[in-house]
Amino acid sequence: MENIFTDDYFMKKALQEAEMAFEKGEIPVGAVIVVNNTVIARSHNLTEMLNDVTAHAEMQSITAAANYLGGKYLKDCTLYVTLEPCQMCAGALYWSQISKIVFGASDAQRGFEKMGTQLHPKTTVVRGVLADEAADLMKRFFLERRK
Amino acid sequence: MENIFTDDYFMKKALQEAEMAFEKGEIPVGAVIVVNNTVIARSHNLTEMLNDVTAHAEMQSITAAANYLGGKYLKDCTLYVTLEPCQMCAGALYWSQISKIVFGASDAQRGFEKMGTQLHPKTTVVRGVLADEAADLMKRFFLERRK
Repeated sequence: MENIFTDDYFMKKALQEAEMAFEKGEIPVGAVIVVNNTVIARSHNLTEMLNDVTAHAEMQSITAAANYLGGKYLKDCTLYVTLEPCQMCAGALYWSQISKIVFGASDAQRGFEKMGTQLHPKTTVVRGVLADEAADLMKRFFLERRK
Repeated sequence: MENIFTDDYFMKKALQEAEMAFEKGEIPVGAVIVVNNTVIARSHNLTEMLNDVTAHAEMQSITAAANYLGGKYLKDCTLYVTLEPCQMCAGALYWSQISKIVFGASDAQRGFEKMGTQLHPKTTVVRGVLADEAADLMKRFFLERRK
């Protein structure tokens, strides 16, 4: 039987979160955290609604996942996020010791890879999963904003 | 008349917060955010109590200050923090566009300066204010823990 729990499968859930952000007028970034093929946290960017620069999708999911697990380390977890994390979120992921980060679109300007933010040595990274969908959503958002 | 609102004055308030963290068994780091010589946010590290790697003193103060100001940018604010911020906190401070960061003890291992985390171009940094007091508190904490 085919394994339905692929990176695409979970990234689609993160994209659904990004669409929810879009509908609220938030920069459309969504995230989920998965352990044993189960989504234990889902969130989208809420910086405008909460008036809080720290309310990125990833930060909320890290907090929610730790709360669900009852411990602050996310050692057996995978984060799916539609956009490459920034310095802040990568810094939080460093502390969380998360196992795996899967991101969609790259952020050539403010992404952690360009910025040189250090992840935990145990963390692996997968790039570009459903990147076009994530990037299209961002483009549509900024196009509508300019109108 | 002498100006009592010096960097030392506000760093002492951050140190009081760090001592509160110490008493709770948290790594003793404290922070305050100041605008026009008024403290608008104060916090201390709560990562253990909240089971949350994102609950650093700085993160909480950034959120609280933005909430107080009713806007997410901290353009006329100064953060006083007893320990050099990490990548995550410096990344959050980048987004906040904070005017000034004053820190006490340096963190040669995980501080943002060694890690190369980028601050906002408008942010100025002052280092080493009451650094010995902050460092002593950290040393005492880890010494007691080892017992």
